[in-house]
Amino acid sequence: MSYNIAILGASGYTGAELIRLISGHSAMKIKALGGNSKAGQSLAQVFPHLRHLDLPDLVTMEEIDFSGIDLCFCALPHKTSQEVIAALPQDLKIVDLSADFRLRDPEDYAKWYGNEHAALAQQQEAVYGLTEFYREEIRRARLVAGTGCNAATGQYALRPLVSEGVIDLDDIILDLKCAVSGAGRSLKENLLHAELSEGYHAYALGGTHRHLGEFDQEFSALAGRPVKVQFTPHLIPANRGILATTYVKGDAQVIHETLENAYSGEPFIAVLPFGEPPSTRHVRGSNYCHIGVVADRLEGRAIVVAALDNLTKGSSGQALQNANLMLGIDETEALTMAPLFP
Amino acid sequence: MSYNIAILGASGYTGAELIRLISGHSAMKIKALGGNSKAGQSLAQVFPHLRHLDLPDLVTMEEIDFSGIDLCFCALPHKTSQEVIAALPQDLKIVDLSADFRLRDPEDYAKWYGNEHAALAQQQEAVYGLTEFYREEIRRARLVAGTGCNAATGQYALRPLVSEGVIDLDDIILDLKCAVSGAGRSLKENLLHAELSEGYHAYALGGTHRHLGEFDQEFSALAGRPVKVQFTPHLIPANRGILATTYVKGDAQVIHETLENAYSGEPFIAVLPFGEPPSTRHVRGSNYCHIGVVADRLEGRAIVVAALDNLTKGSSGQALQNANLMLGIDETEALTMAPLFP
Amino acid sequence: MSYNIAILGASGYTGAELIRLISGHSAMKIKALGGNSKAGQSLAQVFPHLRHLDLPDLVTMEEIDFSGIDLCFCALPHKTSQEVIAALPQDLKIVDLSADFRLRDPEDYAKWYGNEHAALAQQQEAVYGLTEFYREEIRRARLVAGTGCNAATGQYALRPLVSEGVIDLDDIILDLKCAVSGAGRSLKENLLHAELSEGYHAYALGGTHRHLGEFDQEFSALAGRPVKVQFTPHLIPANRGILATTYVKGDAQVIHETLENAYSGEPFIAVLPFGEPPSTRHVRGSNYCHIGVVADRLEGRAIVVAALDNLTKGSSGQALQNANLMLGIDETEALTMAPLFP
Amino acid sequence: MSYNIAILGASGYTGAELIRLISGHSAMKIKALGGNSKAGQSLAQVFPHLRHLDLPDLVTMEEIDFSGIDLCFCALPHKTSQEVIAALPQDLKIVDLSADFRLRDPEDYAKWYGNEHAALAQQQEAVYGLTEFYREEIRRARLVAGTGCNAATGQYALRPLVSEGVIDLDDIILDLKCAVSGAGRSLKENLLHAELSEGYHAYALGGTHRHLGEFDQEFSALAGRPVKVQFTPHLIPANRGILATTYVKGDAQVIHETLENAYSGEPFIAVLPFGEPPSTRHVRGSNYCHIGVVADRLEGRAIVVAALDNLTKGSSGQALQNANLMLGIDETEALTMAPLFP
Repeated sequence: MSYNIAILGASGYTGAELIRLISGHSAMKIKALGGNSKAGQSLAQVFPHLRHLDLPDLVTMEEIDFSGIDLCFCALPHKTSQEVIAALPQDLKIVDLSADFRLRDPEDYAKWYGNEHAALAQQQEAVYGLTEFYREEIRRARLVAGTGCNAATGQYALRPLVSEGVIDLDDIILDLKCAVSGAGRSLKENLLHAELSEGYHAYALGGTHRHLGEFDQEFSALAGRPVKVQFTPHLIPANRGILATTYVKGDAQVIHETLENAYSGEPFIAVLPFGEPPSTRHVRGSNYCHIGVVADRLEGRAIVVAALDNLTKGSSGQALQNANLMLGIDETEALTMAPLFP
Repeated sequence: MSYNIAILGASGYTGAELIRLISGHSAMKIKALGGNSKAGQSLAQVFPHLRHLDLPDLVTMEEIDFSGIDLCFCALPHKTSQEVIAALPQDLKIVDLSADFRLRDPEDYAKWYGNEHAALAQQQEAVYGLTEFYREEIRRARLVAGTGCNAATGQYALRPLVSEGVIDLDDIILDLKCAVSGAGRSLKENLLHAELSEGYHAYALGGTHRHLGEFDQEFSALAGRPVKVQFTPHLIPANRGILATTYVKGDAQVIHETLENAYSGEPFIAVLPFGEPPSTRHVRGSNYCHIGVVADRLEGRAIVVAALDNLTKGSSGQALQNANLMLGIDETEALTMAPLFP
Repeated sequence: MSYNIAILGASGYTGAELIRLISGHSAMKIKALGGNSKAGQSLAQVFPHLRHLDLPDLVTMEEIDFSGIDLCFCALPHKTSQEVIAALPQDLKIVDLSADFRLRDPEDYAKWYGNEHAALAQQQEAVYGLTEFYREEIRRARLVAGTGCNAATGQYALRPLVSEGVIDLDDIILDLKCAVSGAGRSLKENLLHAELSEGYHAYALGGTHRHLGEFDQEFSALAGRPVKVQFTPHLIPANRGILATTYVKGDAQVIHETLENAYSGEPFIAVLPFGEPPSTRHVRGSNYCHIGVVADRLEGRAIVVAALDNLTKGSSGQALQNANLMLGIDETEALTMAPLFP
Repeated sequence: MSYNIAILGASGYTGAELIRLISGHSAMKIKALGGNSKAGQSLAQVFPHLRHLDLPDLVTMEEIDFSGIDLCFCALPHKTSQEVIAALPQDLKIVDLSADFRLRDPEDYAKWYGNEHAALAQQQEAVYGLTEFYREEIRRARLVAGTGCNAATGQYALRPLVSEGVIDLDDIILDLKCAVSGAGRSLKENLLHAELSEGYHAYALGGTHRHLGEFDQEFSALAGRPVKVQFTPHLIPANRGILATTYVKGDAQVIHETLENAYSGEPFIAVLPFGEPPSTRHVRGSNYCHIGVVADRLEGRAIVVAALDNLTKGSSGQALQNANLMLGIDETEALTMAPLFP
């Protein structure tokens, strides 16, 4: 059995990562690559590292015949994504990697993204794509909304602790370090090598990063009451990786056990032995997430650190894992490759 | 007027940085360079980037005639440093860059460093070298103990807040990101380029980093009661820089004003406009420290971020600033060069 | 059909890369991991990025029962390798990744490596492991000698040109840029991140690099007369990659056609369209080699540039490709994964 | 005595580097900073690392009163520069850092840059700014044309060899490795951190790089007959540095002596001991150029390697050195700071 796949927005980093992953998939075949700004080009022109793959040239979205497509990945910028998805066949299975369908409440969406949502019907239908926690809904979903990469990392560290009530919900701090590919392939001065290399900084401080919308939505739902974390992202001079250092109040051993129990059957989430911290270099290029728990010298406090690759488990790997579920394929198919180190 | 300078431990990174800085000093002349493992070599052999300087070859400590030396920098490993300094002339002015004389209480020293102190007399005499807060004592000191580079960064962010009582003293979190030169030139697997580049991680989690000894000593003294912070350092794939992100409870505007007042006359500490975060790339190679304050979306919480260059303001630049004071030279001499960017 | 595999020297970078690649192999099972200095440790301790694999702990070589092993990879340091291989069962299939069996003439070996060879019988038996040019010999071989990673890159650019006689054999210059993992995981000052990052340099200049022994042996054999190239390697602040820029005298179009013909059926060697240069970023983590040809403005001169990943096509990927051939498995098995970019 | 300085194009990397260097100058005072696209902003907004300097805000060029300016640096893009300089007071001393006045022959200019020159009078007047070889002309010049950074590096390695006739003039190969700040602060996809970091490649192959116009002009003039070198630049994942590896035919010892003689009195050019190669890390942030000579194993061939910092000795440091000469100041003023390492 083989499924026909389309990818819209194939010329960005998450698009390239989807193609990399699907190239090793035994039951998916890429039939169409949409990329409006680079339509007409071969993939080898846009991404020379993918020249070995036998793939169609990039086309405009209008040129794609979706009738033969089993599932479509949308790796488009937010706002564009909602317009495109509203116009796609309404029975087409879709995994969206943009921010457009992550928030369930249209007012939350408007608050965090600054515009009214243009595809409200689809927004209501969309299932939040954090696989380990929405697996059954994803299996039955037509439209799955990929999570923010930072939002995924923070939730892996914290969700079981919030839902089990083993930490103080009013004092959660999430200090996150993200590599630069998370900012995409856009031409911005602060993403130049000469600006970023050999330097690092915090950004979107004080609670202005949009992924907070996801944290608020998810943690509050889990707790059954409003939960608001403090979240500060930092941009680090590396290409791939997210490291979330979370500071919580609770018993470290209980926290470790809670996480171990929550993830004991999960193929991609590893809770490290108590006291062992993770590193981004140990998950690079893979779909794994490593979580470490350490007790602080201050009684009743713990540090939970989660590491994953923002382009894989943080976006395209997650998207493929969800697509596998939606198509009834083994969830881990094409996702168990070992990390690349060094 | 010119002062004769000796540097012990000239073959490490802080030694090289001292030489770089002193090479632009109008009133200091390096007369002796001690480096036991590389004695007999020229500086050009040990540090080819310093080949243009007219400097003596490296010698063993025993070969140095200290009678003509006005001030000696000790950039030796800790434990070695206390033995060496105990044996040096007891009227020689010394700036020590090791950890050996930072803690005043011998029991604290033994607890954090795992051995009894071998130079108790000197330990009692030593002045803690955080220039902005011990300026007058340093001016009169014979032996100044350079601070830990992480300890300096955290204290710049927090000291005025602790002493003015504008933050909750029982809930201070210090998430620190340090570049690799802070680990020195030692041969360790985790310092190899192939291990570190493109990866980052937390280390010494949970309150085990030795610089906590300094935080405890200093903050408790300021507050007049025990203050214990949570402190997690991270190793970042960059050569120079420390970024300390501190999470505190207090009014952000008051915090900003308190810091502005505290540092208003300081030549090297810049409190950025409210809401503006600093970056390590803007202080690299310089003696400046930038501090930013942002209010969190959660009322009553603020983020204070401090950035400096670990080899300059964090160690060798601080040492030279202190030496200038001890010798009655303008404190900023040879330290006002602009940062190197990009 | 499944083959039992042993890896000696599993705690180095080429060992880790072998494990990464074999973890995706449908017909190989790793039964033993030898690593004397880390015997007794689990692979997760030595290489945390491989913790997800179900693999035996590291053992000493003596603890391995080779009777059930179908093929053994030796990723040991040179000199050690020849001693070990001489002592292994003489009917065991072996792919050696060290330098020990690359040179056929014992005098050449002694000249380049400074010691007499300790396993002359095996040296005579070994087949040079440059797959595309020794494929049939490798298929029948018991012992295959992996090539130097620099030597492989240069030969991919030049072998067809030498054998077809389309370039001046007396004026070949090979300026090579190698990433740092090529130097292995050894503790050397010049491999520290703080030394290497943000700096680059030539080394082993003037014809002293040992891979010249391979160039001399192979090019002279192809030409039927002595051929000696000029070869200067450079160390570049990146983890993976080799870029060989070769300057040759000949007609650029003829050179391009010669390379296209030579590699037309090859699964892993891509000759780019005329005038298009390759980049290391487009082969990272993969077994592909990209070759570009450009005509110089000076008539009769051309530049041929080859790029590959030193740990994959340059060593462990090549080794697995050869092992596939030796075991009668599809040559490309477990080697067609797409490169990792960014 | 103090001279009033203006800098046009102050918002680019060479502009920032000029400001960094001049900030340590005892006899220059920056009176005006021109930057049309960022006019109205403070320097701290454009370059936060320069916030400590007491400097005027950026203005448009039209706002600058040049009557009180003693010397103006133009760090504008090429083509813009010639238009601006034609419109400036014709008695104003100018050091131009663009490519506009490097080539003396208008036809050469048109050939390499693709447009007719718009300031022919100034072009005729301009002196080529390679300080060590045009020192006396520069001293008397009104308008000095800064050299290309690659062109400077290659000429330091080769000029004395061409003029003394100690190498074969028909077989010179220049393989050059340039860090990314040489490409400026422009927003191009291939300059993004995610594209460049962990990858490197050759570009402008085959004799298409514009700095070849300078090589041809200068080497031919020295030799008294046409000399055309082969030149291939490579982009390296580092921020600062140029390493030029040149392959020449001649006696290595004679070559070394020739270079030593040529540069014996030069304050910024160091010819390393025979056989010792230079590294970019040893000149970073400084105005020094290191040159090494090694004999190849092939008789009659040598490798000459030159290293410098593209932003300092390759552009802004050179510009300041020339300005010192034009104003009768000590040539080395503000330029002898030690390199920054690590």
